[in-house]
Amino acid sequence: MQLLEDRIKQDGVVIKNEILKVDSFINHQIDVDLLNKVCKYLGEKFQNIDKIVTIETSGIPFSIGISQVLGNIPVVFAKKSKSLILNSENAYTSEVKSFTRKSNSLIYIDKNYLHENESCLIVDDFLAEGNAAMGLVDIIKQAKAKVAGVAIVIEKEFQGGHKRLEEAGYHVESAAIIKGFKDNKVVF
Amino acid sequence: MQLLEDRIKQDGVVIKNEILKVDSFINHQIDVDLLNKVCKYLGEKFQNIDKIVTIETSGIPFSIGISQVLGNIPVVFAKKSKSLILNSENAYTSEVKSFTRKSNSLIYIDKNYLHENESCLIVDDFLAEGNAAMGLVDIIKQAKAKVAGVAIVIEKEFQGGHKRLEEAGYHVESAAIIKGFKDNKVVF
Repeated sequence: MQLLEDRIKQDGVVIKNEILKVDSFINHQIDVDLLNKVCKYLGEKFQNIDKIVTIETSGIPFSIGISQVLGNIPVVFAKKSKSLILNSENAYTSEVKSFTRKSNSLIYIDKNYLHENESCLIVDDFLAEGNAAMGLVDIIKQAKAKVAGVAIVIEKEFQGGHKRLEEAGYHVESAAIIKGFKDNKVVF
Repeated sequence: MQLLEDRIKQDGVVIKNEILKVDSFINHQIDVDLLNKVCKYLGEKFQNIDKIVTIETSGIPFSIGISQVLGNIPVVFAKKSKSLILNSENAYTSEVKSFTRKSNSLIYIDKNYLHENESCLIVDDFLAEGNAAMGLVDIIKQAKAKVAGVAIVIEKEFQGGHKRLEEAGYHVESAAIIKGFKDNKVVF
């Protein structure tokens, strides 16, 4: 999506040829006009979705926008647990390795909010190695619900998450696909 | 707002006459159709707003919806720091006492995303004692920006936050105002 790629070129900050910061329009300050357009672009690529599933925090705003495009379907966001042991029999849980933080975290969704056979669209702001998305896939499968696809705002293709999810059989769409970083600039 | 009060009566869960859980439609699963209506109700009560300021996590979805009503103005969400000491000269910070967690946390906003004289609308899902809102007021003042008002989804009037903010000179609007809890039921 040209509009988003142009914005990343203009306002994204690449650190050490490794990390892309988009704090000024996606992750800390949110450009809601851009968000609406990205959500329209992504939402129109999927049909017959019952529910959107994301992870707190940055996936939430785009989940709301995509839900609006898909008829205001419910959004469920997985919460991050502070401990790796969760005192609850009422939640589906999965362990997720964080790329940026080099640590694992436990995510969970209350069993009341995912149901058998529901068609779920996974939404997130970033796709790197695909760990967060695979954690959500894991949780959706535990609920015997269906993964209808994965909608991503910014994909770092070179980290392999897209390929990994497609090889697992899932339809992935990204609004911007980054091929790599060179001289602290983004290559599309 | 009758629609929201009815929904709280129907699906809210009161624990020990003290805590209201609205996980099924606001805090974990989000009813986006309800969100749109609440945001229209709240957004129309304010004018000439430049920016929405909220705190992660649960304030974010409603901030997006209110931004859309107010012309897709930028949303900035304060982040919660894991430590009370923040290694950054580039952020405005404030310490916030949490009512439910009985502990303090440090919230911060990057100095790049708040500017002098900007008219800021504070948005949050809950208003109890008003600590979170006052933390955002503190940050907005540090930036020499203006607090144009406070928009709240659910207010627990008996905890005094509304009164406290009004006495400090701020215009507060809440979509649902809870007078108290009785026999683990909500009283409006």
